[in-house]
Amino acid sequence: MNVHGTPTRTIWPVADGVEIIDQTALPHAYLVRKLRTLEEAAQAIATMQVRGAPLIGVTAAYGLWLAARAVPSDAGMAAARETLLATRPTAVNLRWALETVAARLAPLPPAERAAAARAAAEAMADEDVAINGALGAEALPLIRAAGARRRPGEPIEILTHCNAGWLATVDRGTALAGVYAAHDAGLPVHVWVDETRPRNQGAALTAWELGQHGVPHTVIVDNAGGHLMQRGQVDLVIVGTDRTTAAGDVVNKIGTYLKALAARDCGVPFYVAAPSPSIDWSITGAADVIPIEERAAEEVTTVAGATAAGEAARVRVVAPGSPAANPGFDVTPARLVTGIITERGVAPASREGLARLFPERASAATGARGGEPAR
Amino acid sequence: MNVHGTPTRTIWPVADGVEIIDQTALPHAYLVRKLRTLEEAAQAIATMQVRGAPLIGVTAAYGLWLAARAVPSDAGMAAARETLLATRPTAVNLRWALETVAARLAPLPPAERAAAARAAAEAMADEDVAINGALGAEALPLIRAAGARRRPGEPIEILTHCNAGWLATVDRGTALAGVYAAHDAGLPVHVWVDETRPRNQGAALTAWELGQHGVPHTVIVDNAGGHLMQRGQVDLVIVGTDRTTAAGDVVNKIGTYLKALAARDCGVPFYVAAPSPSIDWSITGAADVIPIEERAAEEVTTVAGATAAGEAARVRVVAPGSPAANPGFDVTPARLVTGIITERGVAPASREGLARLFPERASAATGARGGEPAR
Repeated sequence: MNVHGTPTRTIWPVADGVEIIDQTALPHAYLVRKLRTLEEAAQAIATMQVRGAPLIGVTAAYGLWLAARAVPSDAGMAAARETLLATRPTAVNLRWALETVAARLAPLPPAERAAAARAAAEAMADEDVAINGALGAEALPLIRAAGARRRPGEPIEILTHCNAGWLATVDRGTALAGVYAAHDAGLPVHVWVDETRPRNQGAALTAWELGQHGVPHTVIVDNAGGHLMQRGQVDLVIVGTDRTTAAGDVVNKIGTYLKALAARDCGVPFYVAAPSPSIDWSITGAADVIPIEERAAEEVTTVAGATAAGEAARVRVVAPGSPAANPGFDVTPARLVTGIITERGVAPASREGLARLFPERASAATGARGGEPAR
Repeated sequence: MNVHGTPTRTIWPVADGVEIIDQTALPHAYLVRKLRTLEEAAQAIATMQVRGAPLIGVTAAYGLWLAARAVPSDAGMAAARETLLATRPTAVNLRWALETVAARLAPLPPAERAAAARAAAEAMADEDVAINGALGAEALPLIRAAGARRRPGEPIEILTHCNAGWLATVDRGTALAGVYAAHDAGLPVHVWVDETRPRNQGAALTAWELGQHGVPHTVIVDNAGGHLMQRGQVDLVIVGTDRTTAAGDVVNKIGTYLKALAARDCGVPFYVAAPSPSIDWSITGAADVIPIEERAAEEVTTVAGATAAGEAARVRVVAPGSPAANPGFDVTPARLVTGIITERGVAPASREGLARLFPERASAATGARGGEPAR
């Protein structure tokens, strides 16, 4: 997507490493950082300089390349996988990316692994872009249909939560892929952007990237979406996912469940954009046993932003002495999801619906009931 | 309730005016301000130095006293009512308080009006405390019942939104009156405090007053409550209201509707503490036609807090150039409300339920269909 008018990806290889956009500096500063080592890649994921399930996966793949340049032995590669896997446990793409690259490297002599890892990471980045292009193409008719009740020229009103846009992927985004496709096709779209406390990825990242691409949007607090739906001001909701189970239950940023409830109550379609690497075929049972990552209380008690002078600053918003809790994700039950947008089509949020689109994945996972839970 | 261990009201008369706690400075500073004129009283309400439906009403009543000291003529009193009514249009208590005091002053000669207004305001303040004491007594058995599934000594988990506590009233609070009653009765309660963006009344005010009174609590972002309910970590929800219609529809701080939806989905009781002055008997039809106050976008685009050095500061959190919308309230339909806690008992959220407790008010309003909508 565009940054200052120039088409840009969120991650790209250079001769001596891989460059990323530091998303912790956005929207107040646009900084490109170079990752030269495994440790720098792991650090970039852990501190959320890169975030978003698909981008985490691709960054981890490049991290294996950086590791293979230094210690390409079996032991070195295994240690690198452990380091990267520990950074962000909820996004299933991370595990998928590491396993995919590792499987290609294992049969190779160590001396060939660095080049192979880089090629695998680049292929994965390109695949992400291709998948997201397909997600956008699949979402476009849904957006068009949801806007059918609008008068000609009246915007189609889309609500999204967190950032499942270009910045969460290599390019195009997942939930926002359809928005960009619609905008580029000349449909008049307007996006309600949930600010998405505690880290404000909506206010900081989604608003920034929509603005860079010229898509009309309005930021709202997370409390406001239900009211807008009650008043008929939302035509459809599209969100991303960190992990969707084989049964169609959707693990996504905390607060997604509340918007799904409001959409159901108000008759608004609620779609989840789920590229297949974010589907966890190993979890076929109830998702409400999935442990949810508890993040630092400081993300709740303080808010990061910019002063009037444009300098980065952090202010305390909670009464001194009061504790805070910070669950990072919630589970939206499949029954609240109108459809799951994948690169192979839009599936009903059910085991049967997903298995019909991905029969080879669903059958391979048979017998693996329960599987590894998200942490 | 206690401030630094000393029982304190939120507003009290002194010889030459009325003193208030400046709630815009909390939780980082505890400041008492003196209001000497009508204009200062109106300013205190408009800038939310005092806020909360019941406290707004009482402050307006004292404002009429301050006005009557200066210009006690019929014209002077009418102008004062207009000035005060324009400050915060959603809380129906404001209109009720002004009409109640004005009705007492009208038959009096102007020279007697100031003393009568002060007496009326003091009586209204005392009545608020009495009503809230009754709300607490009515809520106590509900809290005890909701905690019945907990093991002995395990806390009863209560979730609340915004601040409907002591600080929103003259004393005791509305939604929190029951919490204080339970805590004082020795029940082990723990409160999940929604931070309540955009103005963070939960994080700043509810957390502060619970802390001052020694009630265990934890602040969460507004996105988190649904997840906690899904995981069985909430036994009941209690919120306040700015205006509840005769049919039991609840106008309250933006985001209340989302928590009511989650409570219904998870089988958690959802109660609204509504002192009778906050019930609008003139609205008997659908509440979804009530226009909702749209507040300044800056409340969304920036966040106020304190720096590490303890100084007040405001940071921008939204991408530069991105617009924001800021509806202040939403409507929770009566069908999602388990019960309305009033000073006369707990009513089903319905026309019949409320009319049974307040037959004289319900019948007096008959024929006034529609009435004056909230703005």
